[in-house]
Amino acid sequence: MKLASLKTDHPDGKLIVVSKDHTRYVEAIDIAPTLQFALDNWATCSEALFAKYKSLSDGLEATSAIFAGKAIFAPLPRSWQWLDGSLFLNHGHLMQQAFHLPPIEDADIYPLVYQGAGDSFLGAKDDIVVADLKHGIDFEGEFGVIVDAIPMGSSAEYALSKIRLVVLLNDISYRALGPREMKTGFGFVQAKGATAFAPIALTPDELGEHWQNGRVCLPLQVKRNGQRFGEPHGQEMHFGFHELIAHVAKTRPIKAGTVFGSGTVSNADPAKGQACISELRAKEMIEHGAPQTPFMQQGDVVSFNVIDASGNSLFGAIEQRVTVSTLSENL
Amino acid sequence: MKLASLKTDHPDGKLIVVSKDHTRYVEAIDIAPTLQFALDNWATCSEALFAKYKSLSDGLEATSAIFAGKAIFAPLPRSWQWLDGSLFLNHGHLMQQAFHLPPIEDADIYPLVYQGAGDSFLGAKDDIVVADLKHGIDFEGEFGVIVDAIPMGSSAEYALSKIRLVVLLNDISYRALGPREMKTGFGFVQAKGATAFAPIALTPDELGEHWQNGRVCLPLQVKRNGQRFGEPHGQEMHFGFHELIAHVAKTRPIKAGTVFGSGTVSNADPAKGQACISELRAKEMIEHGAPQTPFMQQGDVVSFNVIDASGNSLFGAIEQRVTVSTLSENL
Repeated sequence: MKLASLKTDHPDGKLIVVSKDHTRYVEAIDIAPTLQFALDNWATCSEALFAKYKSLSDGLEATSAIFAGKAIFAPLPRSWQWLDGSLFLNHGHLMQQAFHLPPIEDADIYPLVYQGAGDSFLGAKDDIVVADLKHGIDFEGEFGVIVDAIPMGSSAEYALSKIRLVVLLNDISYRALGPREMKTGFGFVQAKGATAFAPIALTPDELGEHWQNGRVCLPLQVKRNGQRFGEPHGQEMHFGFHELIAHVAKTRPIKAGTVFGSGTVSNADPAKGQACISELRAKEMIEHGAPQTPFMQQGDVVSFNVIDASGNSLFGAIEQRVTVSTLSENL
Repeated sequence: MKLASLKTDHPDGKLIVVSKDHTRYVEAIDIAPTLQFALDNWATCSEALFAKYKSLSDGLEATSAIFAGKAIFAPLPRSWQWLDGSLFLNHGHLMQQAFHLPPIEDADIYPLVYQGAGDSFLGAKDDIVVADLKHGIDFEGEFGVIVDAIPMGSSAEYALSKIRLVVLLNDISYRALGPREMKTGFGFVQAKGATAFAPIALTPDELGEHWQNGRVCLPLQVKRNGQRFGEPHGQEMHFGFHELIAHVAKTRPIKAGTVFGSGTVSNADPAKGQACISELRAKEMIEHGAPQTPFMQQGDVVSFNVIDASGNSLFGAIEQRVTVSTLSENL
């Protein structure tokens, strides 16, 4: 099943069911007004949503035509809790090598994770509005999942059964602000911008054999200004999403609609490229002693896409342009 | 004005206006069903709420009798964003001295802050349900503020004008889990439990001369199992709340209903005691070479209160008991 949220005046938008090829959609207001509502009531809503998706596929629904990207919110436009991991260990290894940092102890045993701002996610075509280009504007292409309620102390296996939706996201990062925040030990606040999501959220069954052990086992196509930047593969994720969830749930109950991220997709094979600029810069530092690739500039565009074996986009594309905020003078 | 939220089946509860002495309340459903709604519409709601508070004080409202603490949620039962600072630098200094840690660079220039779980705050009398007593169960008595929308890049002065409510809170912390998370640089996730709030949120005018430069300039009474634990004073906060807000708003817009915390209230004068166990243990380590005071045990009770010059409780008391979670077997 494929779900999305139409932009409305309400910050949660309006839930829609989208056809497999993303050309048509049907509203789901008779089942759930918003995706958060559907997640809060999954036991009663999901069967009806799956039925609507099937009748949409069978041509039995009065549908509306394909939506332009700008009319779509993130699938879940805001979340009560957004926890972003760093589960591709190759990324951390490169950073440590480039910046001569000590390795993070036990990063292969305990998933790295910070809590980010979930109060207003960006849609797939929304601009990346930054305060200052000097902050080192970067993207991070990631997979993510949205879960049902999961009690404190749940096992990874139980958590796996409560993953309701899989998403594709861009964790916007300000690299000039990260190192100071990491050194405090309190984690990233200034160093992270609003997170953007591809328009479509999938139920895991849509991934078929590519959903394995809590991982999205597909390459992520990343482009900067239309040029290939990488296509790292999701299979190299060191922890499955269910292990990240169980780690967080160790001391807190998880509410329906909580979003978990994989961290930037990163592969040991350099031929795969990368899903964030800082990783390319790290490789340049290791090879040449200094970074060569600049961070994002005004007007730069980053895009992400995941294509299945039949050549179809699974989540729809993220395509975002960087613009600098113009603040009103009375602030 | 004093506001609170009655417990209902809905996670946001029902907004009520509370009399200055906390003996009576009146519903505000005709103005705003929830505190989040009132904050989202402060320009149109606040005047009517202030008028209701005045007519309540003047005996002109049909009121309901004093509420028992257990029937009350946190004033804002959940928030889209909860950012907790560590703004009393004395606390950090003691920790560094006791644990022989290097000082956190520039902690007097940039406020320390992590993002916590705002998806389900606890009420003032709710149990502290922990997964394991070995996690080192601690409390942290803090002041906090709830703000209106604040654009990215706003100044501290502007942020000060957008502080709508002042609150008293208990940032429940698991001390055995904190050091590993701090060392990763990603901040606290497992190391923090659900945050609890005193029942009443105040508009800053209720504090009179005790609201100074974005600080609550009053002592915080802390008791453990009915015994005095400390009464550190809010005035020693190194940063005002407005400075913390401007720090966070540097790279993100702030939504109405965002909650900011002061970090544990801590004073340089040892006679003032402390608002968390770990600080007392740090003092014991410095003095005796080892901690003596245990963390919270099953059934232990912590309470917090703030009393004004007339001897009245300003926020109502927090009084919470520790219990160990009993998980169902199928998780």
